[in-house]
Amino acid sequence: MNYIFKKENRTEASLNNFNAEHIRWMKFILRQSKKVGEIELPISAVILDERGRCIGRGSNKRNVNSDPLGHAELIALRQASFMKNDWRFNECSLITILEPCTMCASALIQARMGRVIYGALDEKRGGLGGSIDLSKHKSSHHKMEVIGGILEKECRSEIKLWFKKLRNQI
Amino acid sequence: MNYIFKKENRTEASLNNFNAEHIRWMKFILRQSKKVGEIELPISAVILDERGRCIGRGSNKRNVNSDPLGHAELIALRQASFMKNDWRFNECSLITILEPCTMCASALIQARMGRVIYGALDEKRGGLGGSIDLSKHKSSHHKMEVIGGILEKECRSEIKLWFKKLRNQI
Repeated sequence: MNYIFKKENRTEASLNNFNAEHIRWMKFILRQSKKVGEIELPISAVILDERGRCIGRGSNKRNVNSDPLGHAELIALRQASFMKNDWRFNECSLITILEPCTMCASALIQARMGRVIYGALDEKRGGLGGSIDLSKHKSSHHKMEVIGGILEKECRSEIKLWFKKLRNQI
Repeated sequence: MNYIFKKENRTEASLNNFNAEHIRWMKFILRQSKKVGEIELPISAVILDERGRCIGRGSNKRNVNSDPLGHAELIALRQASFMKNDWRFNECSLITILEPCTMCASALIQARMGRVIYGALDEKRGGLGGSIDLSKHKSSHHKMEVIGGILEKECRSEIKLWFKKLRNQI
C-alpha cells in the first residue's frame, strides 16, 4: 500500500501550513479508525516527515496489548523515532482524529513535534486546549503549531457512534 | 540478583503507607542511576506490586535508544504492564529519584498508578507539583497518592553532579 499521496504536492513550501494533503490523511486515518473501533476506542494517528511521507502510524491498542502507553499517538511516535533514528521531530507533523490527551500532548512536546493536527476537541481529557493547553504551559520547553477542528463533525460522530454501540452491547 | 528486600516485611498493611522498604528501594535506584549517568541524565525508576516485589524497572534511555518515550518511568511501566498483562496499576507503587515530567505524570495517571514516590522536586518540568500538579487537575480521572522529597538531598546532588560533569566536558 502506498502511503504517499500526490507526489507533486510534497514541497516544503506547501507543507508550511495546513493544506489539502492533511485533509486526505485525516480521511485516511478516519477509515483506519473504523477498523480499530470494533474492539478499541477508534483513534488512529499518522506522523508525516518534512516531505509529507508517512514515517509512523498507530491505532489505539491499550486493551488489546494491555499497554498503558498504547495510545495511537505514542505508537506512531515510537515507530517514527525508529524510522528516523532520532527523538526530535521539529520538521514533522502528527495527524490524529481526537485531540491528544495530556500524556500524548506532553510526549509530543518532549519529541519536539513541529505541528499537531487533530479533528475533534476533547473537553474532558484534551492536553492541547480542550482541558488544558500544555504546549503553552510554563513546563513546556517547545512551542509547536497546533491546528484543531479539521473534519471535526466526521471525527466526533465516529467516536460518538462507538460509544453508542458500546452502550447497546452492555 | 534478588530484587525483593526482606520478605517478612512485605505485608499489605506495611505497604499502605511509605515505609523503610521504600527508602531501601530509593537507595537501590540511586546506585543504578550512577551507572546510567555516564551517558544519560541519571534517572532510574522501579515499580513495586502490592506485595512489594519489583515488577518493572527502567533507566533513562532517550539518547541511547533515540526514543522520545525513553524516560525511566515509561520504560518501567512498559515492563510492568508486560509482567502484569494489564494496564491498570491501582495496587502498585512507582519509585523514582526525580519528580516525573508532565509526560510521565500523565502516563502514570493513565495507568492508574496507586502511589508515586520521588526524591527531588523538578520545579521546571515536574508534573506532580513542581511545575503543575496533573494528578489534581480536572483532566485527571484517577487520584493517586504522591509522596515527594524522599532522600531529596542525595537525589538532587546526583543530578547536579551530572550537569556539572557535562558542563566540564563541553
